[in-house]
Amino acid sequence: MSKPLILVTNDDGMFAPGIKALVEVCKEIGEVVVVAPNSPQSGQGHAITLEHPLRLNKVEVFGGVEAYECSGTPVDCVKLAKNVLLRDRKVDLCVSGINHGSNASINIIYSGTMSAAMEASLEGIDSIGFSLLDYSFEADFRPAQHYAGQLIRSVLKNKLKNCKLLSVNIPKLPLEEIKGFKICKQGTGEWIEDFQSAQDPRGQTYYWLTGKFIPDAKETDTDLAALKEGYISIVPSWHDLTKHDAIEPLKYLEHGG
Amino acid sequence: MSKPLILVTNDDGMFAPGIKALVEVCKEIGEVVVVAPNSPQSGQGHAITLEHPLRLNKVEVFGGVEAYECSGTPVDCVKLAKNVLLRDRKVDLCVSGINHGSNASINIIYSGTMSAAMEASLEGIDSIGFSLLDYSFEADFRPAQHYAGQLIRSVLKNKLKNCKLLSVNIPKLPLEEIKGFKICKQGTGEWIEDFQSAQDPRGQTYYWLTGKFIPDAKETDTDLAALKEGYISIVPSWHDLTKHDAIEPLKYLEHGG
Repeated sequence: MSKPLILVTNDDGMFAPGIKALVEVCKEIGEVVVVAPNSPQSGQGHAITLEHPLRLNKVEVFGGVEAYECSGTPVDCVKLAKNVLLRDRKVDLCVSGINHGSNASINIIYSGTMSAAMEASLEGIDSIGFSLLDYSFEADFRPAQHYAGQLIRSVLKNKLKNCKLLSVNIPKLPLEEIKGFKICKQGTGEWIEDFQSAQDPRGQTYYWLTGKFIPDAKETDTDLAALKEGYISIVPSWHDLTKHDAIEPLKYLEHGG
Repeated sequence: MSKPLILVTNDDGMFAPGIKALVEVCKEIGEVVVVAPNSPQSGQGHAITLEHPLRLNKVEVFGGVEAYECSGTPVDCVKLAKNVLLRDRKVDLCVSGINHGSNASINIIYSGTMSAAMEASLEGIDSIGFSLLDYSFEADFRPAQHYAGQLIRSVLKNKLKNCKLLSVNIPKLPLEEIKGFKICKQGTGEWIEDFQSAQDPRGQTYYWLTGKFIPDAKETDTDLAALKEGYISIVPSWHDLTKHDAIEPLKYLEHGG
């Protein structure tokens, strides 16, 4: 039997430790093709490049693994992989990450990691986005690698049902303290934002986004709650933004408001 | 009574006819503050700017209406408006658009117009994204203006219930042929993508995204169906990407997959 074909991407760029950790896991399981941004693309959400052409260059970064750096966004990487590089091949799984930092709760909306994975799911490919709750360059990815490997093997074996996309967040804990996987829903939280404002060398004002994430402390069945308890959260996700329970209450607008 | 405060933004940039059309509507209804990108930002999705500082400059574009151009994405515009420019004021409504082109179905995922509106909803502000199914610079925005005005007045009067975000798409039809509003869900569709590939003047290959949108022709209760019948579609929307009906079927992963 031929090995499964796994597409690996991320949003932290080709040289982030997180993608190296994920490639190491995947090359034990299948044939790997990496297409990743050539610069950090955190917070790029589902951005695509329309105003400029894109570049794609073969690189040797992961010890013999087929890899390409792309000048675009994470979603561009997946589109180019699916429609140019791998257009005549069946991709069995797309994995994105391992992201440096959480994509739980509303952070999924801003996440290039998760948007890349979602794009693959829109193209009909089972897809998993992995994020580790540790921003540091020196983060220990070994516990994440252990569980990523287990989940990737399971998804390749069983295929995803009712779903083509998993959002996986991994707590910053040693392997023996992680309690396992928890399937849950996206938690509620909000960013209390602030902008650092200062003057540039020419005396012009600039603003730089900063902020603090405040989780909803009362919820118990969410990714945020699972992570707090020491579980790896898995949120089955997709692209439907409809707020279905608001359709009926808004029907009055059809009659002139 | 004081006039409602309306924040206007878009993704086509400060000089697009669509935002001018929307400002014209809003200044008849309330006090208007415009914060919009200083360059086209179509397809920027929910991108935010983390790697660079942002600039915000007051401009005189809309005949006396308070307006600022921003160097960032549509979502950056809303964050700066809420947290810097208007931090001490209550914004009653955020409107985004009028976008040049459809944001129905999965296009909402890629849309800077809708992401800006969603960002405002995340900040607790009732929010509406407007899109006209006409890409041309010379598009006739008058029918869209008529209905946008009606909807904005209604939402300001009644406030949105069960929901803080509406995705509104307007068919390319003369006023008298538009049948009114239809409240519906996000339709299913897919992009059949292709990349135009060629050599640049230095002989290097580039890729430029192109593609064709294929709607699901069988669905009847969606934005795509409503638009086809000549209605303006209104999809109540939000930021929960959980695929709730996949939570139970995936529970087996908690037990080792």
